[in-house]
Amino acid sequence: MRVALLGSAQTPFGVSELDTRRLASQAIVQAAVDAGVGGSDLDVAFCGYAITGLLDGQENVVGHLALRDAGMAGVPVTRVENACASSACALHEAVAAILSERADVAVAFGVEKMTGQSTSDAMRALAGAGDVPFEAEIGMTFPATFALLARRYGELYGDPREAMAAVAVKAHRNAGANPKAHLRREISPSDVYEARLVADPLTLLDCCPVSDGAAAVIVASERYVARHGLAPAAWVRATALSAGTFDDNSTLDGFAATRTAAARAYEEAGIGPQDVDVAEVHDCFTIAEIFHVEDLGFADKGKGAQITLAGETDRGGRIPVNTSGGLKAKGHPVGATGIGQICELVDQLNGRAGSRQVDDPRFGLAHCMGGFLAGDCASLAVTILERP
Amino acid sequence: MRVALLGSAQTPFGVSELDTRRLASQAIVQAAVDAGVGGSDLDVAFCGYAITGLLDGQENVVGHLALRDAGMAGVPVTRVENACASSACALHEAVAAILSERADVAVAFGVEKMTGQSTSDAMRALAGAGDVPFEAEIGMTFPATFALLARRYGELYGDPREAMAAVAVKAHRNAGANPKAHLRREISPSDVYEARLVADPLTLLDCCPVSDGAAAVIVASERYVARHGLAPAAWVRATALSAGTFDDNSTLDGFAATRTAAARAYEEAGIGPQDVDVAEVHDCFTIAEIFHVEDLGFADKGKGAQITLAGETDRGGRIPVNTSGGLKAKGHPVGATGIGQICELVDQLNGRAGSRQVDDPRFGLAHCMGGFLAGDCASLAVTILERP
Repeated sequence: MRVALLGSAQTPFGVSELDTRRLASQAIVQAAVDAGVGGSDLDVAFCGYAITGLLDGQENVVGHLALRDAGMAGVPVTRVENACASSACALHEAVAAILSERADVAVAFGVEKMTGQSTSDAMRALAGAGDVPFEAEIGMTFPATFALLARRYGELYGDPREAMAAVAVKAHRNAGANPKAHLRREISPSDVYEARLVADPLTLLDCCPVSDGAAAVIVASERYVARHGLAPAAWVRATALSAGTFDDNSTLDGFAATRTAAARAYEEAGIGPQDVDVAEVHDCFTIAEIFHVEDLGFADKGKGAQITLAGETDRGGRIPVNTSGGLKAKGHPVGATGIGQICELVDQLNGRAGSRQVDDPRFGLAHCMGGFLAGDCASLAVTILERP
Repeated sequence: MRVALLGSAQTPFGVSELDTRRLASQAIVQAAVDAGVGGSDLDVAFCGYAITGLLDGQENVVGHLALRDAGMAGVPVTRVENACASSACALHEAVAAILSERADVAVAFGVEKMTGQSTSDAMRALAGAGDVPFEAEIGMTFPATFALLARRYGELYGDPREAMAAVAVKAHRNAGANPKAHLRREISPSDVYEARLVADPLTLLDCCPVSDGAAAVIVASERYVARHGLAPAAWVRATALSAGTFDDNSTLDGFAATRTAAARAYEEAGIGPQDVDVAEVHDCFTIAEIFHVEDLGFADKGKGAQITLAGETDRGGRIPVNTSGGLKAKGHPVGATGIGQICELVDQLNGRAGSRQVDDPRFGLAHCMGGFLAGDCASLAVTILERP
């Protein structure tokens, strides 16, 4: 049985006046309108958020509060959490609900409100995605970890500094064409080099911002779509998960868990990386995109920097990556990111991406990572959509 | 397709020296041994916990850390959270993974470490299962809410004080026969009446304790069981969810969400309340058991107190309820409770419940509630197991 994606919506990512529940309810209502369904059509809901408990003390029932605010109280809702991959995993469970024939229509949504607190509070909360007593205590924050990975990449394949800047420049350029993006100003490579150093070699412009936002999608069974004569916005061809660490052979030359999730997703969809026309990739730091485009199969090992510099991941390139602006410039409200990526793919596949539209895409891939890479704490989710 | 339960285990509930991950890994390893499977047989994992973020700052990746400690790193694991129903919902998603044919073998586990902090810290964290800015701020804690419900029950059906004490006495008696229970000493009705008042009419002995603990179950597809010639410990006949509030007609005479989830579960299993031979019911406070046995269909509306006083819910009665000791005396490590209930049912259905064994049960029902009853914040999970 196929699973249809009926509608999608996201709030603007950035600094919002809305609180968590209202951000989420706004995305839910807009996705329902986009799908042409109402609250009474929903059989089940899955809600992703990661660090709201630590940031505002409301660790539980955010999904219930959001659905109530959306006028949809009474829909059974379960929170799904996997750090920054929370809403990608919420979509995975919504698809499971359809595939198991327990539900005909499901909503999956994700939300995070991060800007109400200081950046250091947000960083402390995010460090909970690692092994707190071990990693957080020794200062293995996310920027520190990715800085070490950038250095390792340089040792193995040559200095990625220029390619990292190219990732940032591309992200800001794409975000400029995305009205929902957080950081929309164009930047130059020298802006990246000269920005404040965060963790050598990462500067501030190598790092995604702290953002607020929410995103939602409605999925449905093929029989429901047929019975109601609906036109899907996309078919969900694969949602695959993996868990893991930096690398199974400890060479630190890539993300084994990305390779595993991608292999599962390609098998489920019956396609290969060469079939993907547009991709959203988890670029929490510029170096991450370079690693991940290799591990997703878009470039050979060690060639991610090279294809980036050659413009192959640009909007008009061979495999456009992060046309939305990515986490880096569209923003990264952690619990909302996974479904935010899906929203971009749906827009691209339906020719509604405005000035950032790529040419006639058929397959879109989203790649979302949650948790720390060290210590077997990472979860990877790869989703593949097909244009109807 | 049917879903088999292959094995189950729980740690002792009570005050533990172990931290969250080690509690969980202990339950996982013991459940795997009970099931006769190893980590390499597991396709996917679902982990339930509710308030670990607020209590020890590790809001994310507890499931990853527990699996690593169990020697099972690399199994894709997703956190499932629904306040006190977290692990009941984790089992629901594990069953969905099997039914959707994405997995053949799954582990669902739940854990909470609550005693390391002061009781007031634990209560503050638990208040996050309600609408924090509204309910928590006005003092609508769980004890306050259930005290109001006890008064309402008295107005409608007569004073439940004596029946509430009977629930507590029964819970402690059953816990005395359960080596895994937290509060194993026998108590008398006058002990209940004379205990410290918490929220009138609830005394300390009407309230479940703050406990540590973990529980895990292994489920598998029918084809996996057949292929490997395994003997299931039980068949999962239903796992049903609902969301809701006190009561859909605002009479506050019962829990509408319990009735909804129970109706769904009975329909899925093809049985009725009269077929249930043993039940674990969410008795976070003594009055809760009285409400819920009515809404589960074990007693007519307003007769829950009466059947309790008549001994019908005792171990040798018509419908034995909380033979484990229940939340009230077995203990309530919130994220572990739902699967802890399942462990008791599995023991009863397999004749391994020792001196608390009921006579030849075929169907067992577990009822687990998460979130506040006010404000549409509650999630209800009802699970029905059948003896193979």
